[in-house]
Amino acid sequence: MPQLLRVQNSAVSSDGFGAGEGQSLERPFGHADPAALMSWAGATASWPNRSEPGGSRGLDDYFTRDFRNNIGAEIMGRNKFGPVRGAWPDLKWRGWWGDDPPFRTPVFVLTHHPRPSFTLTDTTFHFIDATPAGALDQARVAADGRDVRLGGGVATVREFLDADLVDTLHIVVAPVDIERGERLWNGPDELTDRFHLESVPSPSGVTHLLFWRR
Amino acid sequence: MPQLLRVQNSAVSSDGFGAGEGQSLERPFGHADPAALMSWAGATASWPNRSEPGGSRGLDDYFTRDFRNNIGAEIMGRNKFGPVRGAWPDLKWRGWWGDDPPFRTPVFVLTHHPRPSFTLTDTTFHFIDATPAGALDQARVAADGRDVRLGGGVATVREFLDADLVDTLHIVVAPVDIERGERLWNGPDELTDRFHLESVPSPSGVTHLLFWRR
Repeated sequence: MPQLLRVQNSAVSSDGFGAGEGQSLERPFGHADPAALMSWAGATASWPNRSEPGGSRGLDDYFTRDFRNNIGAEIMGRNKFGPVRGAWPDLKWRGWWGDDPPFRTPVFVLTHHPRPSFTLTDTTFHFIDATPAGALDQARVAADGRDVRLGGGVATVREFLDADLVDTLHIVVAPVDIERGERLWNGPDELTDRFHLESVPSPSGVTHLLFWRR
Repeated sequence: MPQLLRVQNSAVSSDGFGAGEGQSLERPFGHADPAALMSWAGATASWPNRSEPGGSRGLDDYFTRDFRNNIGAEIMGRNKFGPVRGAWPDLKWRGWWGDDPPFRTPVFVLTHHPRPSFTLTDTTFHFIDATPAGALDQARVAADGRDVRLGGGVATVREFLDADLVDTLHIVVAPVDIERGERLWNGPDELTDRFHLESVPSPSGVTHLLFWRR
């Protein structure tokens, strides 16, 4: 089986933004409302951060349920890891996800400011200054035969798309406009020269876009 | 996490049949054309029986990809296991799936004619004469915390529905009429008193019906 590089559960607004302007500790999605982008996922039974029983088991749940399915490593951009920009003032910031991050695999954080690896329960964060191809090589080895998740944010996804390293994308279009911030695309047609595309509207109001290589 | 009993990738015709009349070794689906019911699955990259690379990675693939996801055991009816009816003339029949069955967990075959368990690669078949509740108890222990798949056929699914033991169902309606044979239902509305229902048309032409308990 080939080891795929997969974008999963990546939400964008109708106008193509994955986050708004002014990202910070208090507002990880900038001026955009995180609920407008992510509430479809939080409503499902299999959302990794779910702390209460319940949740829907319809279409949207197949996507949250697939989050860890055959995934052996994640690559993420440094701006997904946290709000600190530039050199690390100290090593106190350990991600948004508390003591038990949902990844449960090695995670490779792309940064020009490497720092020592650390482990929280089943997740080990590594900090690497690498090209997309170099990062993918490292993640593939760590994934031990399984696929690699490309975790975002959208700037990181674009970088790997530009290097033509992405095999599949699951992009969730939420019915909201953000207008400014981190833009993934002007529209999904930008990718259809290289990828098949299926568009699947969900009863929850979002639309799941599924891309795989031609 | 609760241990669910899940029906997955179970195909029926538009008029509600899971197999036609006259099932036999040569025609496991009776007079019905198996391709009409199952070609949606065979076209996906993650179909467990796929022997060639390729295949689609759109919506249908999420369902075939979920086949083994968090599943620790399967329960199936004896008529899914094979074409032999009544007492076993000998023990030569070992299932439809060759030397490497796709289940890779314990499989509990419901039969009034128990026979010794046997193992093919990662799959062990057990033959039990049990009520639905009794079979589910055994399968849950074997699944070791993971979910149990209810593998069919439709008579077995109906029996477990009648005993109210099923937690989720994924039924795939194929655009074909079979007219006679093994009937699952007159229509999905029969279950909506007990289950939520989402209906998701696929670009491949089938419709995925997703049920989960109210």
